[in-house]
Amino acid sequence: MTAVNPPSIAPLDPAAGDPFYRQIYDRFRAAIASGALKPGDRIPSARALTRELGLARGTIDAAYALLAAEGYIQARGQAGTIVTPDLKPRVPVASPPLPTVGDTAVPSFRPDSILPFQMGLPALDEFPRKIWARLGARCLRAMQPVDMVHPPVYGLPALRAEIAAYLQVARGINCSPAQVFVTSGFRHTIALIAHALLKAGDRVWVEAPGYPPTRELLAQMKIAAVPVPVDRDGMRVAEAIRAVPRARAAVVTPGHQSPTCVSLSLPRRLALLDWAGRNDAWIIEDDYDGEYRYVSRPLPSLKSLDRDGRVLYAGTFSKVLLPSLRLAYLVVPESQVERFEQVIQIVAGGSPELMQAVVTAFIREGHFARHIQRMRRLYAERREVTAAGLENVLGKRVRIDEQPGGMHLILRLQGQQSDRHLVAAMRKDGLYAEALSDWMSDGEEASTLLLGFTNVDSQATAERLGKRILNLME
Amino acid sequence: MTAVNPPSIAPLDPAAGDPFYRQIYDRFRAAIASGALKPGDRIPSARALTRELGLARGTIDAAYALLAAEGYIQARGQAGTIVTPDLKPRVPVASPPLPTVGDTAVPSFRPDSILPFQMGLPALDEFPRKIWARLGARCLRAMQPVDMVHPPVYGLPALRAEIAAYLQVARGINCSPAQVFVTSGFRHTIALIAHALLKAGDRVWVEAPGYPPTRELLAQMKIAAVPVPVDRDGMRVAEAIRAVPRARAAVVTPGHQSPTCVSLSLPRRLALLDWAGRNDAWIIEDDYDGEYRYVSRPLPSLKSLDRDGRVLYAGTFSKVLLPSLRLAYLVVPESQVERFEQVIQIVAGGSPELMQAVVTAFIREGHFARHIQRMRRLYAERREVTAAGLENVLGKRVRIDEQPGGMHLILRLQGQQSDRHLVAAMRKDGLYAEALSDWMSDGEEASTLLLGFTNVDSQATAERLGKRILNLME
Repeated sequence: MTAVNPPSIAPLDPAAGDPFYRQIYDRFRAAIASGALKPGDRIPSARALTRELGLARGTIDAAYALLAAEGYIQARGQAGTIVTPDLKPRVPVASPPLPTVGDTAVPSFRPDSILPFQMGLPALDEFPRKIWARLGARCLRAMQPVDMVHPPVYGLPALRAEIAAYLQVARGINCSPAQVFVTSGFRHTIALIAHALLKAGDRVWVEAPGYPPTRELLAQMKIAAVPVPVDRDGMRVAEAIRAVPRARAAVVTPGHQSPTCVSLSLPRRLALLDWAGRNDAWIIEDDYDGEYRYVSRPLPSLKSLDRDGRVLYAGTFSKVLLPSLRLAYLVVPESQVERFEQVIQIVAGGSPELMQAVVTAFIREGHFARHIQRMRRLYAERREVTAAGLENVLGKRVRIDEQPGGMHLILRLQGQQSDRHLVAAMRKDGLYAEALSDWMSDGEEASTLLLGFTNVDSQATAERLGKRILNLME
Repeated sequence: MTAVNPPSIAPLDPAAGDPFYRQIYDRFRAAIASGALKPGDRIPSARALTRELGLARGTIDAAYALLAAEGYIQARGQAGTIVTPDLKPRVPVASPPLPTVGDTAVPSFRPDSILPFQMGLPALDEFPRKIWARLGARCLRAMQPVDMVHPPVYGLPALRAEIAAYLQVARGINCSPAQVFVTSGFRHTIALIAHALLKAGDRVWVEAPGYPPTRELLAQMKIAAVPVPVDRDGMRVAEAIRAVPRARAAVVTPGHQSPTCVSLSLPRRLALLDWAGRNDAWIIEDDYDGEYRYVSRPLPSLKSLDRDGRVLYAGTFSKVLLPSLRLAYLVVPESQVERFEQVIQIVAGGSPELMQAVVTAFIREGHFARHIQRMRRLYAERREVTAAGLENVLGKRVRIDEQPGGMHLILRLQGQQSDRHLVAAMRKDGLYAEALSDWMSDGEEASTLLLGFTNVDSQATAERLGKRILNLME
């Protein structure tokens, strides 16, 4: 097959707003879309086209790089460059393509795709998208110069005030807006705490099993994570005190332990606070889903019991709104406000003004409180139907933990089946699950699956998905 | 004055979507707006209102905290809580109030206000707000579940491809989208580089004078910044090699040195690349405003000369679009892609999907290229009229550097006047300036002002502002 005539041969328009590379790119795309260029057709080499159009080589390279990056063309070495043989139409800008199931580059703990049982996601089908789009459009139209400059690095004052007020009511936390810092997510929160209060070589208690990214991030910052076992009352605080009394901090998930969903008992909460007070140590309360408790009212936060100012409270909008927002927050003790202000000035750049303005409006106009209430009811239902559906199908092969809250089910596999093997098989089959073994720090096998239920819409769906798991078990 | 009847005394509505604290807050606000409560009026104590309404104390505290945070009420100790005496109407959510001039909490290098001569801002009056709002609203309406989950931590693939294509044309950089990582700003970029390639105790060359936040951030990460003098050809590379040959990296601003606006000469670029190649050291090219050169075409980047894969290229959308976006990017050598992918998985959470989608659409539809071209012309004009206006008024008291590009003027004060004192006086008078002395690393006095010109709209404005400076000089 010889090279077809390039669709870009018509003279380019130097007066057009679009730069040349973009015009070339557009013409190739149009030619492919119209069928003038077909999958498998060879296109001119960049060198040939450069000569032909009398443009800089870099211009052609840029157009080709963009076409290749978006999958329109492929370089085939000696064979030249061709239109991608199995080319499929692309989705528009605002919706990047769903990674396919076989995409093994998807990281374990934060896939950017959506698979059945995926953990850590709110119910995407029930997010009030229209209200959100309306508020967003309104903030965009109202944008003034002051909204265009560097955002305040501690967070928008209005958002900090809304968060402080919300925490008072919802989590029993008494704090001023000055104690609230807006961050871009839990990792950012932990990094800020480490910059402000910890140093390389410090030891920090973490829960075992526990959220793996916390351990990875601490390791990256040269802080030693000391695993502390978790039982049905949460972290075994007394054991931690015996083993490593001089730790500088403890990271805990007292509301629903991540991932076992147990709550830290009141005696242990008090023991932890007492230890921190005596040792000038810090407690980092990761309250990632404190809102989602189904059997009674949400538990008060550990922070609400903090008389000595030792607790740093980490909250997030990822679970109650959207992960794609990248907005979270940190409440620091009053005595540490100045220290955090200094450090944040140095290391942080603030979060985008627009996202903060939209969330502020969403809270201020009552949508936030309503949304959380709706989701609490919805998740209680979805938990119920997911558990029922899976139990119907999987029967005695699994035991599902009773649990008061959270966003995932805990499936104990009977008969010592490897959770890691089953998870790998499920991923291959387009199902999401995490192996509790991957949340342990000692490499032990736990024979337990973690399954997100927030996006399972009915018992029928759960049964259908359960049958796929059953097939993989046999 | 006795406490007035609280406007919240009418029964609250438990069925309303708004939580109680919000209903109380709303009623107080309405009462203040209607004049039922006047500035200076005393309102009931939280305790009294708690009793009266039969609600939890926390509910009332939350409402009062929000009212106080937003400036409606003030606690006056024994005198109780009153409606703020000099209360002024507030601006809506999307437009937080402009900090007043006397606000001394505004940090030097990143004020979140807008003052005449403020540095580091694009021309806010000329930003295509309508197009931006339209694209933003479109992305919001098009939001699909895949746009709501965790964004890809390396950046949206479409945006990475657009950045790679743009850099090819605009900055002569030949890179694949996989080498491009989207970050939330220059600080984030530097932190990622430090996490991936540096360790505590490493030494890094920085320019003197140079951008102070770079030095502060390195110090926070326990990396030793080694100041290297800058002359009219940029960083004195030979001197740096003699003094600290074993440095692990160099941070340079080769296009327009920050803040002297000189360009790094070709021989020094080559010497720097040669040093890095021989020593396996890294060059961090901070190309914060490479687009804005007025005397000829933008210089190619240092990265475009990088044969050995030693240059990390840091770009940003803050100067060419908006600082409030919090979007920047980093191009890493091909050999380091995997290392950065690992580190970013651990330490970063990605940037908000929406902001990335809007920028992608803005580039893809040609607005970006047009905007940069327009701004290049506009800034050349504004530089000209600002310099002319100031020279007219200040005459021989100052000498303004000739410079090929950049976004600020360099005013050499004649007669050894202290730039720090003059800057302090200007800030008090509501004018912005930075003292070159604050960009030196040795505490020396430089007698030189840095003045942003991008938001000075005419020579008349420059003369008016120049007269205010003149008054302060005398």
